[in-house]
Amino acid sequence: MKELLEHLQAYILISEEEFKQIETYFECFEVKKKQDINSFKNISNYNFFVVKGCLNMYFINDKGENQSVQFAIENWWISDLLSLHRNKKSVFFIQAVENCKILSISKKNQEKLLIEFPKIERYFRIIYQVALGASLYRIKFLYQASKAERYFHFIKHHPEFAQRIPQYLIASFLGLTPEYVSEIRAKNFS
Amino acid sequence: MKELLEHLQAYILISEEEFKQIETYFECFEVKKKQDINSFKNISNYNFFVVKGCLNMYFINDKGENQSVQFAIENWWISDLLSLHRNKKSVFFIQAVENCKILSISKKNQEKLLIEFPKIERYFRIIYQVALGASLYRIKFLYQASKAERYFHFIKHHPEFAQRIPQYLIASFLGLTPEYVSEIRAKNFS
Repeated sequence: MKELLEHLQAYILISEEEFKQIETYFECFEVKKKQDINSFKNISNYNFFVVKGCLNMYFINDKGENQSVQFAIENWWISDLLSLHRNKKSVFFIQAVENCKILSISKKNQEKLLIEFPKIERYFRIIYQVALGASLYRIKFLYQASKAERYFHFIKHHPEFAQRIPQYLIASFLGLTPEYVSEIRAKNFS
Repeated sequence: MKELLEHLQAYILISEEEFKQIETYFECFEVKKKQDINSFKNISNYNFFVVKGCLNMYFINDKGENQSVQFAIENWWISDLLSLHRNKKSVFFIQAVENCKILSISKKNQEKLLIEFPKIERYFRIIYQVALGASLYRIKFLYQASKAERYFHFIKHHPEFAQRIPQYLIASFLGLTPEYVSEIRAKNFS
Protein backbone atom coordinates (compact mmCIF):
# COMPACT_ATOMS: atom_id res chain seq x y z
CA MET A 1 0.00 0.00 0.00
CA LYS A 2 3.02 2.29 -0.32
CA GLU A 3 1.28 4.21 -3.15
CA LEU A 4 -1.43 5.36 -0.73
CA LEU A 5 1.13 6.25 1.95
CA GLU A 6 3.08 8.37 -0.54
CA HIS A 7 -0.08 10.08 -1.73
CA LEU A 8 -1.14 10.89 1.85
CA GLN A 9 2.37 12.17 2.64
CA ALA A 10 2.18 14.61 -0.26
CA TYR A 11 -0.56 16.44 1.69
CA ILE A 12 -0.17 15.62 5.39
CA LEU A 13 2.41 14.24 7.80
CA ILE A 14 1.90 10.51 8.37
CA SER A 15 4.46 8.31 10.06
CA GLU A 16 5.00 4.75 8.93
CA GLU A 17 3.71 3.59 12.34
CA GLU A 18 0.49 5.52 11.90
CA PHE A 19 0.17 4.10 8.41
CA LYS A 20 0.32 0.56 9.78
CA GLN A 21 -2.97 1.32 11.51
CA ILE A 22 -4.40 3.33 8.62
CA GLU A 23 -3.91 0.52 6.13
CA THR A 24 -5.99 -1.88 8.22
CA TYR A 25 -9.10 0.11 7.17
CA PHE A 26 -8.53 -0.71 3.51
CA GLU A 27 -8.95 -3.77 1.37
CA CYS A 28 -6.82 -4.46 -1.66
CA PHE A 29 -8.24 -6.24 -4.68
CA GLU A 30 -7.63 -6.77 -8.36
CA VAL A 31 -10.08 -6.38 -11.20
CA LYS A 32 -9.75 -7.55 -14.74
CA LYS A 33 -10.25 -5.29 -17.74
CA LYS A 34 -13.97 -4.71 -18.45
CA GLN A 35 -15.05 -5.88 -14.98
CA ASP A 36 -17.56 -3.66 -13.13
CA ILE A 37 -16.80 -2.72 -9.54
CA ASN A 38 -19.74 -0.48 -8.75
CA SER A 39 -23.18 -1.35 -9.93
CA PHE A 40 -25.84 1.04 -11.03
CA LYS A 41 -28.85 1.01 -8.67
CA ASN A 42 -26.84 -0.33 -5.75
CA ILE A 43 -26.00 2.06 -2.96
CA SER A 44 -22.30 2.95 -3.19
CA ASN A 45 -20.68 1.70 -0.03
CA TYR A 46 -17.06 2.11 -1.03
CA ASN A 47 -14.59 4.75 -2.01
CA PHE A 48 -11.91 3.45 -4.40
CA PHE A 49 -8.25 4.44 -4.74
CA VAL A 50 -6.46 3.33 -7.90
CA VAL A 51 -3.05 1.80 -7.15
CA LYS A 52 -2.52 0.58 -10.70
CA GLY A 53 -4.68 0.72 -13.80
CA CYS A 54 -7.55 2.85 -14.98
CA LEU A 55 -11.24 2.99 -14.07
CA ASN A 56 -14.12 4.47 -16.06
CA MET A 57 -17.28 5.83 -14.42
CA TYR A 58 -20.24 5.82 -16.78
CA PHE A 59 -23.98 5.68 -17.13
CA ILE A 60 -26.19 4.20 -19.82
CA ASN A 61 -27.88 6.91 -21.88
CA ASP A 62 -31.29 6.89 -23.54
CA LYS A 63 -29.81 5.35 -26.69
CA GLY A 64 -28.50 2.43 -24.60
CA GLU A 65 -24.90 3.56 -25.01
CA ASN A 66 -22.31 3.81 -22.23
CA GLN A 67 -21.56 7.48 -21.55
CA SER A 68 -18.35 8.12 -19.57
CA VAL A 69 -18.27 10.92 -17.02
CA GLN A 70 -14.92 10.33 -15.29
CA PHE A 71 -11.73 8.34 -15.52
CA ALA A 72 -9.38 7.52 -12.65
CA ILE A 73 -5.76 6.46 -13.02
CA GLU A 74 -3.02 5.87 -10.42
CA ASN A 75 -3.48 7.90 -7.19
CA TRP A 76 -7.02 8.98 -8.05
CA TRP A 77 -10.06 8.35 -5.90
CA ILE A 78 -13.34 7.44 -7.57
CA SER A 79 -16.86 6.71 -6.36
CA ASP A 80 -20.41 7.98 -6.68
CA LEU A 81 -19.91 10.42 -3.81
CA LEU A 82 -23.57 11.48 -3.65
CA SER A 83 -24.76 7.89 -3.44
CA LEU A 84 -22.13 7.25 -0.76
CA HIS A 85 -23.08 10.35 1.21
CA ARG A 86 -26.85 10.08 0.97
CA ASN A 87 -27.24 6.27 1.02
CA LYS A 88 -29.11 6.47 -2.26
CA LYS A 89 -28.88 4.17 -5.23
CA SER A 90 -26.01 4.98 -7.55
CA VAL A 91 -26.65 6.29 -11.05
CA PHE A 92 -23.22 5.19 -12.29
CA PHE A 93 -21.25 2.09 -13.11
CA ILE A 94 -17.50 1.93 -12.53
CA GLN A 95 -15.60 -0.40 -14.86
CA ALA A 96 -11.95 -1.32 -15.28
CA VAL A 97 -10.43 -0.01 -18.53
CA GLU A 98 -7.30 -2.09 -17.83
CA ASN A 99 -6.42 -4.78 -15.30
CA CYS A 100 -6.32 -2.83 -12.02
CA LYS A 101 -5.10 -2.94 -8.45
CA ILE A 102 -7.55 -1.07 -6.27
CA LEU A 103 -7.78 -0.13 -2.60
CA SER A 104 -11.31 0.14 -1.28
CA ILE A 105 -12.56 1.60 1.95
CA SER A 106 -16.13 1.16 3.10
CA LYS A 107 -18.14 4.18 4.14
CA LYS A 108 -18.21 2.86 7.72
CA ASN A 109 -14.45 2.30 7.80
CA GLN A 110 -13.76 5.70 6.26
CA GLU A 111 -15.79 7.34 9.02
CA LYS A 112 -13.90 5.34 11.69
CA LEU A 113 -10.57 6.19 10.07
CA LEU A 114 -11.40 9.92 10.03
CA ILE A 115 -12.39 9.81 13.69
CA GLU A 116 -9.19 8.01 14.66
CA PHE A 117 -6.96 10.12 12.38
CA PRO A 118 -8.68 13.52 12.01
CA LYS A 119 -5.73 14.85 10.04
CA ILE A 120 -6.87 12.70 7.12
CA GLU A 121 -9.86 15.09 6.89
CA ARG A 122 -7.33 17.63 5.61
CA TYR A 123 -6.08 15.26 2.93
CA PHE A 124 -9.59 14.62 1.62
CA ARG A 125 -10.57 18.29 1.97
CA ILE A 126 -7.70 19.33 -0.27
CA ILE A 127 -8.20 16.69 -2.94
CA TYR A 128 -11.98 17.26 -3.06
CA GLN A 129 -11.49 21.04 -3.14
CA VAL A 130 -9.16 20.79 -6.13
CA ALA A 131 -11.41 18.26 -7.90
CA LEU A 132 -14.43 20.51 -7.34
CA GLY A 133 -12.53 23.53 -8.67
CA ALA A 134 -11.53 21.48 -11.73
CA SER A 135 -15.12 20.36 -12.31
CA LEU A 136 -16.18 24.00 -12.82
CA TYR A 137 -13.41 24.43 -15.39
CA ARG A 138 -14.73 21.31 -17.08
CA ILE A 139 -18.26 22.71 -17.24
CA LYS A 140 -16.86 25.98 -18.64
CA PHE A 141 -15.03 23.93 -21.23
CA LEU A 142 -18.12 21.89 -22.17
CA TYR A 143 -20.04 25.12 -22.75
CA GLN A 144 -17.28 26.93 -24.56
CA ALA A 145 -15.31 24.58 -26.75
CA SER A 146 -16.26 23.34 -30.19
CA LYS A 147 -16.43 19.58 -30.62
CA ALA A 148 -13.02 19.45 -32.29
CA GLU A 149 -11.50 21.68 -29.58
CA ARG A 150 -12.83 19.32 -26.91
CA TYR A 151 -10.89 16.44 -28.42
CA PHE A 152 -7.61 18.21 -29.24
CA HIS A 153 -7.55 20.05 -25.91
CA PHE A 154 -8.02 16.77 -24.07
CA ILE A 155 -5.22 14.90 -25.85
CA LYS A 156 -2.87 17.87 -25.48
CA HIS A 157 -3.53 18.59 -21.80
CA HIS A 158 -4.20 15.08 -20.52
CA PRO A 159 -1.66 12.88 -22.32
CA GLU A 160 -1.53 10.58 -19.27
CA PHE A 161 -5.15 9.62 -20.06
CA ALA A 162 -5.10 10.01 -23.83
CA GLN A 163 -2.22 7.59 -24.31
CA ARG A 164 -3.82 4.65 -22.51
CA ILE A 165 -7.58 5.02 -22.82
CA PRO A 166 -9.22 3.61 -25.96
CA GLN A 167 -10.40 6.27 -28.37
CA TYR A 168 -14.08 5.29 -28.17
CA LEU A 169 -14.02 5.89 -24.40
CA ILE A 170 -12.33 9.29 -24.80
CA ALA A 171 -14.99 10.18 -27.37
CA SER A 172 -17.71 9.13 -24.93
CA PHE A 173 -16.14 11.12 -22.07
CA LEU A 174 -16.12 14.22 -24.28
CA GLY A 175 -19.71 13.71 -25.46
CA LEU A 176 -18.60 12.90 -29.02
CA THR A 177 -19.17 9.91 -31.25
CA PRO A 178 -16.21 7.60 -32.06
CA GLU A 179 -16.89 8.23 -35.77
CA TYR A 180 -16.53 11.99 -35.26
CA VAL A 181 -13.24 11.54 -33.40
CA SER A 182 -11.87 9.27 -36.15
CA GLU A 183 -12.86 11.86 -38.73
CA ILE A 184 -11.20 14.87 -37.04
CA ARG A 185 -8.09 12.83 -36.26
CA ALA A 186 -7.83 11.79 -39.92
CA LYS A 187 -8.21 15.41 -41.01
CA ASN A 188 -5.73 16.73 -38.47
CA PHE A 189 -3.00 14.17 -38.98
CA SER A 190 -3.29 13.90 -42.77
CA MET B 1 -22.36 35.91 11.69
CA LYS B 2 -24.87 33.53 13.26
CA GLU B 3 -25.67 32.07 9.80
CA LEU B 4 -22.12 30.77 9.51
CA LEU B 5 -22.16 29.40 13.06
CA GLU B 6 -25.40 27.53 12.39
CA HIS B 7 -24.03 26.15 9.13
CA LEU B 8 -20.84 24.94 10.85
CA GLN B 9 -22.88 23.40 13.66
CA ALA B 10 -24.88 21.36 11.15
CA TYR B 11 -21.65 19.43 10.42
CA ILE B 12 -19.32 19.76 13.45
CA LEU B 13 -19.46 20.70 17.12
CA ILE B 14 -18.52 24.34 17.63
CA SER B 15 -19.07 26.17 20.89
CA GLU B 16 -20.07 29.82 20.92
CA GLU B 17 -16.73 30.60 22.60
CA GLU B 18 -14.80 28.92 19.82
CA PHE B 19 -16.89 30.77 17.29
CA LYS B 20 -15.88 34.08 18.81
CA GLN B 21 -12.35 33.28 17.69
CA ILE B 22 -13.41 31.75 14.38
CA GLU B 23 -15.34 34.82 13.29
CA THR B 24 -12.26 37.03 13.66
CA TYR B 25 -10.85 35.34 10.52
CA PHE B 26 -13.76 36.61 8.41
CA GLU B 27 -14.77 39.93 6.98
CA CYS B 28 -18.36 40.89 6.38
CA PHE B 29 -19.34 43.10 3.47
CA GLU B 30 -22.30 44.06 1.35
CA VAL B 31 -22.53 44.15 -2.41
CA LYS B 32 -25.16 45.74 -4.56
CA LYS B 33 -26.98 43.91 -7.33
CA LYS B 34 -24.81 43.60 -10.50
CA GLN B 35 -21.59 44.39 -8.61
CA ASP B 36 -18.61 42.10 -9.32
CA ILE B 37 -16.72 40.67 -6.35
CA ASN B 38 -14.17 38.48 -8.10
CA SER B 39 -12.46 39.68 -11.21
CA PHE B 40 -11.41 37.58 -14.11
CA LYS B 41 -7.63 37.48 -14.54
CA ASN B 42 -6.99 38.33 -10.90
CA ILE B 43 -5.78 35.58 -8.65
CA SER B 44 -8.65 34.52 -6.37
CA ASN B 45 -7.57 35.29 -2.84
CA TYR B 46 -10.90 34.82 -1.10
CA ASN B 47 -13.48 32.20 -0.41
CA PHE B 48 -17.01 33.66 -0.10
CA PHE B 49 -19.93 32.53 2.07
CA VAL B 50 -23.35 33.93 1.20
CA VAL B 51 -25.21 35.20 4.30
CA LYS B 52 -27.98 36.80 2.28
CA GLY B 53 -28.58 37.18 -1.43
CA CYS B 54 -27.44 35.37 -4.53
CA LEU B 55 -24.15 35.30 -6.45
CA ASN B 56 -23.52 34.24 -10.04
CA MET B 57 -20.20 32.83 -11.23
CA TYR B 58 -19.68 33.30 -14.97
CA PHE B 59 -17.20 33.68 -17.78
CA ILE B 60 -17.42 35.60 -21.04
CA ASN B 61 -17.74 33.27 -24.00
CA ASP B 62 -16.44 33.67 -27.55
CA LYS B 63 -19.60 35.52 -28.55
CA GLY B 64 -18.98 38.08 -25.82
CA GLU B 65 -21.90 36.81 -23.75
CA ASN B 66 -21.86 36.09 -20.01
CA GLN B 67 -22.09 32.34 -19.48
CA SER B 68 -23.08 31.28 -15.93
CA VAL B 69 -21.53 28.17 -14.42
CA GLN B 70 -22.71 28.37 -10.79
CA PHE B 71 -25.09 30.20 -8.49
CA ALA B 72 -24.72 30.54 -4.73
CA ILE B 73 -27.54 31.45 -2.35
CA GLU B 74 -27.69 31.56 1.46
CA ASN B 75 -25.24 29.16 3.19
CA TRP B 76 -23.33 28.39 -0.01
CA TRP B 77 -19.64 28.89 -0.52
CA ILE B 78 -18.37 30.16 -3.84
CA SER B 79 -14.96 30.93 -5.33
CA ASP B 80 -12.68 29.89 -8.17
CA LEU B 81 -11.17 27.09 -6.09
CA LEU B 82 -8.50 26.20 -8.64
CA SER B 83 -7.30 29.80 -8.86
CA LEU B 84 -7.32 29.94 -5.05
CA HIS B 85 -5.42 26.68 -4.69
CA ARG B 86 -2.86 27.18 -7.45
CA ASN B 87 -2.36 30.96 -7.19
CA LYS B 88 -3.28 31.28 -10.86
CA LYS B 89 -5.40 33.92 -12.51
CA SER B 90 -9.10 33.26 -12.26
CA VAL B 91 -11.10 32.43 -15.37
CA PHE B 92 -14.39 33.51 -13.75
CA PHE B 93 -16.23 36.58 -12.58
CA ILE B 94 -18.52 36.48 -9.54
CA GLN B 95 -21.38 38.99 -9.59
CA ALA B 96 -24.27 39.76 -7.25
CA VAL B 97 -27.66 38.79 -8.68
CA GLU B 98 -29.33 40.61 -5.75
CA ASN B 99 -28.08 42.91 -3.01
CA CYS B 100 -25.98 40.57 -0.85
CA LYS B 101 -24.37 40.14 2.54
CA ILE B 102 -21.20 38.15 2.16
CA LEU B 103 -18.55 36.75 4.49
CA SER B 104 -15.12 36.50 2.96
CA ILE B 105 -12.05 34.71 4.21
CA SER B 106 -8.66 35.19 2.61
CA LYS B 107 -6.64 32.17 1.58
CA LYS B 108 -4.05 33.03 4.25
CA ASN B 109 -6.67 33.38 6.97
CA GLN B 110 -8.40 30.17 5.92
CA GLU B 111 -5.13 28.31 6.28
CA LYS B 112 -4.54 29.84 9.73
CA LEU B 113 -8.11 29.03 10.76
CA LEU B 114 -7.72 25.39 9.70
CA ILE B 115 -4.47 25.09 11.64
CA GLU B 116 -6.01 26.57 14.77
CA PHE B 117 -9.31 24.66 14.41
CA PRO B 118 -8.50 21.44 12.53
CA LYS B 119 -12.06 20.21 13.00
CA ILE B 120 -13.15 22.76 10.39
CA GLU B 121 -11.28 20.59 7.87
CA ARG B 122 -14.12 18.09 8.40
CA TYR B 123 -16.75 20.72 7.63
CA PHE B 124 -15.09 21.70 4.35
CA ARG B 125 -14.32 18.08 3.46
CA ILE B 126 -18.00 17.18 3.74
CA ILE B 127 -19.35 20.16 1.81
CA TYR B 128 -16.76 19.80 -0.95
CA GLN B 129 -17.34 16.05 -1.14
CA VAL B 130 -21.08 16.56 -1.62
CA ALA B 131 -20.56 19.39 -4.12
CA LEU B 132 -18.10 17.24 -6.10
CA GLY B 133 -20.55 14.33 -6.11
CA ALA B 134 -23.27 16.69 -7.34
CA SER B 135 -21.03 18.07 -10.10
CA LEU B 136 -20.80 14.59 -11.65
CA TYR B 137 -24.60 14.33 -11.62
CA ARG B 138 -24.66 17.71 -13.35
CA ILE B 139 -22.28 16.53 -16.08
CA LYS B 140 -24.42 13.40 -16.51
CA PHE B 141 -27.44 15.66 -16.84
CA LEU B 142 -25.75 17.97 -19.37
CA TYR B 143 -24.94 14.95 -21.55
CA GLN B 144 -28.26 13.23 -21.15
CA ALA B 145 -31.08 15.75 -21.02
CA SER B 146 -32.71 17.46 -23.98
CA LYS B 147 -32.69 21.26 -23.93
CA ALA B 148 -36.31 21.41 -22.74
CA GLU B 149 -35.64 18.78 -20.04
CA ARG B 150 -32.71 20.86 -18.76
CA TYR B 151 -35.01 23.79 -18.13
CA PHE B 152 -38.03 21.97 -16.67
CA HIS B 153 -35.88 19.71 -14.49
CA PHE B 154 -34.10 22.77 -13.10
CA ILE B 155 -37.25 24.70 -12.18
CA LYS B 156 -38.84 21.59 -10.67
CA HIS B 157 -35.86 20.45 -8.61
CA HIS B 158 -34.31 23.80 -7.70
CA PRO B 159 -37.27 26.06 -6.94
CA GLU B 160 -35.12 27.96 -4.40
CA PHE B 161 -33.03 29.19 -7.34
CA ALA B 162 -35.68 29.29 -10.05
CA GLN B 163 -37.96 31.61 -8.08
CA ARG B 164 -35.42 34.36 -7.53
CA ILE B 165 -32.94 34.21 -10.41
CA PRO B 166 -33.86 36.09 -13.61
CA GLN B 167 -34.79 33.83 -16.46
CA TYR B 168 -31.97 34.98 -18.75
CA LEU B 169 -29.44 33.88 -16.09
CA ILE B 170 -31.11 30.49 -15.64
CA ALA B 171 -31.02 30.08 -19.43
CA SER B 172 -27.30 30.94 -19.42
CA PHE B 173 -26.57 28.52 -16.55
CA LEU B 174 -28.28 25.73 -18.52
CA GLY B 175 -26.45 26.55 -21.77
CA LEU B 176 -29.69 27.76 -23.43
CA THR B 177 -30.67 31.05 -25.03
CA PRO B 178 -33.23 33.30 -23.27
CA GLU B 179 -35.34 33.16 -26.46
CA TYR B 180 -35.44 29.36 -26.33
CA VAL B 181 -36.50 29.40 -22.66
CA SER B 182 -39.28 31.93 -23.39
CA GLU B 183 -40.48 29.75 -26.24
CA ILE B 184 -40.66 26.47 -24.27
CA ARG B 185 -42.25 28.24 -21.30
CA ALA B 186 -44.90 29.72 -23.60
CA LYS B 187 -45.59 26.29 -25.10
CA ASN B 188 -45.69 24.53 -21.75
CA PHE B 189 -47.86 27.01 -19.88
CA SER B 190 -50.26 27.79 -22.75
